[in-house]
Amino acid sequence: MKKESNEGLTVKKENFSEWYSQIIDKAELVDIRLDMKGFMVIRPWGARIIENMYKIYEKELQERGHEPTFMPSVIPEANLKKESSHIKGFTPEVFWLKEINKEKLALRPTSETLYTPMFKLWIRSHRDLPLKLYQRGSVFRLDTKATRPLIRTREILWIECHDAFATKKEAEKQVQEDIEITEKVMHQKFGIPFLAMKRPSWDKFAGAEYTIGSDVLMPDGKLIQQPSTHLMGQKFSKAFDAKFKTENGKEEYLWTTAYGPAMSRILVSVISMHGDDKGLILPFSLSPVSVIIVPIFTTANKEKILKYAEEIKNKLKDFEIKIDDRDFYTPGWKFHEWELKGVPFRIEIGEKELKAKTLTLFIRDTGKKEIISLKKFPDLKKLGEQFDERLRKNAEKMMEGRIVNCKTAVEIKKAVDNSKIAKVNWCSLEEAGIKCAESVEKSTGAEIRGTLANKNEKPLGKCIICGKKANEVVYIGKSY
Amino acid sequence: MKKESNEGLTVKKENFSEWYSQIIDKAELVDIRLDMKGFMVIRPWGARIIENMYKIYEKELQERGHEPTFMPSVIPEANLKKESSHIKGFTPEVFWLKEINKEKLALRPTSETLYTPMFKLWIRSHRDLPLKLYQRGSVFRLDTKATRPLIRTREILWIECHDAFATKKEAEKQVQEDIEITEKVMHQKFGIPFLAMKRPSWDKFAGAEYTIGSDVLMPDGKLIQQPSTHLMGQKFSKAFDAKFKTENGKEEYLWTTAYGPAMSRILVSVISMHGDDKGLILPFSLSPVSVIIVPIFTTANKEKILKYAEEIKNKLKDFEIKIDDRDFYTPGWKFHEWELKGVPFRIEIGEKELKAKTLTLFIRDTGKKEIISLKKFPDLKKLGEQFDERLRKNAEKMMEGRIVNCKTAVEIKKAVDNSKIAKVNWCSLEEAGIKCAESVEKSTGAEIRGTLANKNEKPLGKCIICGKKANEVVYIGKSY
Repeated sequence: MKKESNEGLTVKKENFSEWYSQIIDKAELVDIRLDMKGFMVIRPWGARIIENMYKIYEKELQERGHEPTFMPSVIPEANLKKESSHIKGFTPEVFWLKEINKEKLALRPTSETLYTPMFKLWIRSHRDLPLKLYQRGSVFRLDTKATRPLIRTREILWIECHDAFATKKEAEKQVQEDIEITEKVMHQKFGIPFLAMKRPSWDKFAGAEYTIGSDVLMPDGKLIQQPSTHLMGQKFSKAFDAKFKTENGKEEYLWTTAYGPAMSRILVSVISMHGDDKGLILPFSLSPVSVIIVPIFTTANKEKILKYAEEIKNKLKDFEIKIDDRDFYTPGWKFHEWELKGVPFRIEIGEKELKAKTLTLFIRDTGKKEIISLKKFPDLKKLGEQFDERLRKNAEKMMEGRIVNCKTAVEIKKAVDNSKIAKVNWCSLEEAGIKCAESVEKSTGAEIRGTLANKNEKPLGKCIICGKKANEVVYIGKSY
Repeated sequence: MKKESNEGLTVKKENFSEWYSQIIDKAELVDIRLDMKGFMVIRPWGARIIENMYKIYEKELQERGHEPTFMPSVIPEANLKKESSHIKGFTPEVFWLKEINKEKLALRPTSETLYTPMFKLWIRSHRDLPLKLYQRGSVFRLDTKATRPLIRTREILWIECHDAFATKKEAEKQVQEDIEITEKVMHQKFGIPFLAMKRPSWDKFAGAEYTIGSDVLMPDGKLIQQPSTHLMGQKFSKAFDAKFKTENGKEEYLWTTAYGPAMSRILVSVISMHGDDKGLILPFSLSPVSVIIVPIFTTANKEKILKYAEEIKNKLKDFEIKIDDRDFYTPGWKFHEWELKGVPFRIEIGEKELKAKTLTLFIRDTGKKEIISLKKFPDLKKLGEQFDERLRKNAEKMMEGRIVNCKTAVEIKKAVDNSKIAKVNWCSLEEAGIKCAESVEKSTGAEIRGTLANKNEKPLGKCIICGKKANEVVYIGKSY
């Protein structure tokens, strides 16, 4: 399952687009050669990273009271059409199956129209609330724009959470909790900082009252949308007549929310944010291999060197330790291979190390090597935490100074052309602001991403486009 | 998310068909009210059991060298049609998507035609072999017969393993390993005994050289096919031109195998084999809740009883312990609820237990209750293992005496009508035996399931149908 050559990356990260195309191929994350627009094969190295993401995400969701479910991958047309703004928004993106006995089924693009009719059946009274469910699986969107592996695809590997509450207040609290989950998992664990952005009304989820997306700045200065959370309010519950009995015996419509972290998309940010000219750098919390042991042996000493490798492996048995004992590759070949694949730590052992009962530890992100006595092997868990913290801090540093106050469309263009995010005073994020948004998009190629979701920023003066009173402080950037 | 009433099952298990319909609904495993033929919603209790199955299965597969992947859920028509017997077998069962820019895509019914072209790209030489891959996910089959929840469905939650080898011998060894995995996981862990049956040629997987299925006897005397493994030989590798270089530098076609355990289907056997008149009985290894603690309290002593419950929970923190502290249900209601859901152990604590620092332990399968001192709480892991062993032994006992030697079609009919499996001398499992098979099916309503895969049974005398020389000892039973 090796590549034919071990040449590694032939471009530097500053040439981001080509770097990305090379790294997902050469680090054996995905394969696009099945030749189906927007679909790809995720190879073992990529799949194991994604499995680790799922584990961490699902654990966090379960600890916060979400329970797993499995919904069908298909949705009856009648369900999909129940909520009018939902179907209007999703219609162009739906894959339809050929009819079977006049049954019209769609591949699910998202599952509100499966969960809400179930809420109607399962929830009788306030006692059954809140109900917090999720599923891991695929959704399908017939994106007609240019697709790109992991970034813009027609099948998305994600988790979708669908929660029901008795009151709007509780539902809004859930939206906040969803942002906290993104913060705890994507930022703190995977090292990906983001801006939580309340989207303009014209950019919210089809059927939602409002949407809060998380925007991650990519090295090329474009924003990529990561997990978003939506207050559906009572829109879907009204469409599906999903009510519950309050403590006072009254019937009321449910308040619902949805949250959708896409593992395949978060992987894009992990690759892009942490990788370097040599290849991937994977967070310790996500790497399928925590430490790669590369034994350096000849035919004569192979046996005892491998025995020493096993001894080290056993010392670290709480972690994913792999010994690369293939003898048809040189140690140098292996070093490059595992650096390309982003393994955080490498242990090199040869005759010298065996005799001295030491090992050489190479650290992927700093590139530093040190000789360590086996007896004094440091706490790997702690080393791993420090590793992840360095990645996170570096990523945070990349964000510093990237937000620029702008006062004119020309300034916005200058900012976004320089891989920055423009911050401006703005008239409105409702219908009234659409014209200004279109004007900015046309002149700068950038989008209104919304207002900070968790900070009430007071605008000063006027909308920089129309000159009317500014009611919002919005962020503008180029995007994927 | 409760049922409206807590009446429990209203039929006994001896009325198996109705019992099954009631239990999957009342134990909140699945919901079929979305009203799409062959598709269902798997509710949290069912989903958590299935998640546990996945965990155990994937761990076993990974320990035996399988690596995860994610393949697209769709397959291009050109791929699906490459291997002629494959497409012939699967054609009637394929869901097709409406064409998109003339692209014809099918929902994957199985993924040989995705994995084999990847093998061609990934495998260069013997050094890359063996390659053992798997994915967890859904496959889709347009079954037109009567569908039944979990038993016969159009979407199947499964794992599929696709492995490639340099020689036929290694591939056949993998087929044997697949049976071992079924034995270790389904039989030893989940308590479901099975017969490993080499299928007649007319009943093998479309595209395989041969298929070994695992047949599980259901309480109603019908067999249900559980995981099957297939020697694909070089059929798919030839269709996709997937070769590798041998040590001698020669080019040869890969030898491939496939193995497909369906979690949603194994759940059927777990439900059916272990359940009783009161509801599910879940193996300790699979139950989402290992121990349910039901505190018995009044408003006056609620706080201290719940504190005691927490104390017990903390003692058992390596397991899934749940305290049912809802105060709008009586303890009796809760007892029935958790018995219906199959939780292996229940701890009851009230004022009496608190004072004496004891607890009452109820064991689901035996129905026994005992009072235990908190200090002397037995090793829960061991209790769980004993629990699972009892379930397995009981299931094995159900199999005893269920295989009957038969000498005529009349005897076969009598056996299968009495919920048994007929064992007979048989002419051939190749083309030559089809007429005899059709004759038996017509007169008995039962099917030729094949020969024992791991025991070379010598037939005596003649085929009981055509009277020609018997070359096989076959097993015949009614089936799902």
